[in-house]
Amino acid sequence: MNREEALNCVKEQLTEHRYTHTLGVMETAISLAERFGADVKKAEIAAIFHDYAKFRPKEEMKGIIQKEQMNPLLLEYSPELWHAPVGAYLVKTEAGIDDQDVLTAIEFHTSGRPDMTLLEKVIYVADYIEPGRHFPGVEEVRELAENDLDRALIQSLKNTISFLMKKNQPVFPDTLATYNSLVHKNN
Amino acid sequence: MNREEALNCVKEQLTEHRYTHTLGVMETAISLAERFGADVKKAEIAAIFHDYAKFRPKEEMKGIIQKEQMNPLLLEYSPELWHAPVGAYLVKTEAGIDDQDVLTAIEFHTSGRPDMTLLEKVIYVADYIEPGRHFPGVEEVRELAENDLDRALIQSLKNTISFLMKKNQPVFPDTLATYNSLVHKNN
Repeated sequence: MNREEALNCVKEQLTEHRYTHTLGVMETAISLAERFGADVKKAEIAAIFHDYAKFRPKEEMKGIIQKEQMNPLLLEYSPELWHAPVGAYLVKTEAGIDDQDVLTAIEFHTSGRPDMTLLEKVIYVADYIEPGRHFPGVEEVRELAENDLDRALIQSLKNTISFLMKKNQPVFPDTLATYNSLVHKNN
Repeated sequence: MNREEALNCVKEQLTEHRYTHTLGVMETAISLAERFGADVKKAEIAAIFHDYAKFRPKEEMKGIIQKEQMNPLLLEYSPELWHAPVGAYLVKTEAGIDDQDVLTAIEFHTSGRPDMTLLEKVIYVADYIEPGRHFPGVEEVRELAENDLDRALIQSLKNTISFLMKKNQPVFPDTLATYNSLVHKNN
């Protein structure tokens, strides 16, 4: 699937605001992939499709998580996490994307997971720092991503965990496990 | 075992500074136990013995964790965590304390665990706020502990997780699990 076909396919799934975000993630993911040696074409496709399931009704996402026997722990945590694994499933079954590297980059773009692939890291960080993002701490992650993808990822995970704790919200265990696996490796 | 016997028993295991800390934890634990309806005598004994293994050599602690088949994940995280489960074991085998409530309060006083007992919470928070503790955020936890033990515990867990992340240190998964179990219950 080329870029135009992919963009047309996701456009009808997203609000205008979220489509603009997707274009920002796409540009950022391509640039990060070039900088850090990931597959640029896979980064482009994963970025375009990363939020494919963002506006599916909660009940539909819940049903897919159950029917497809995804991690049942997801249902105990924020529905904000659900669109990532459900997206990977729908991108495969509805949009016909069957590249496993692209699918896991979509699947783990919100929670992270220990031992993320380079492509998964590119999509996670691109989603965090694309030019439309404006929140405390994003500039620091942008600067880290100029030189060191792992440090950018660690900082974005720290920010996410701190943000959730500040709001008294639970933190998905895999998000901490991703942080732990990275600091274990980088210390 | 009465207070004097217990204090004599731990005194020879600790530095003077750590013994003074232990006296602070004891007074605070008694006061929290009275305030929140925990067993005061058990709180006193658990507090006195909570740091019993603090100065054991790392190799001895590691050996006990392996030989007694404690959680092997402990060995992948900071040795600062080890004195708690090893302490519970040594307090039982060397000091002859066999009250299971007291032993788990010692075992989980550093990591926490999901679904902590009231006594475990009392010891965890007492260890965090005893009058000898001076660090950013301790006063807020002291104030919360005037009225709400769970909120004090949540805040101390948040502070600990933030402190470790600021130092780029790994966070023991049970510490996050403790936080998650409490916010799930208190939200």
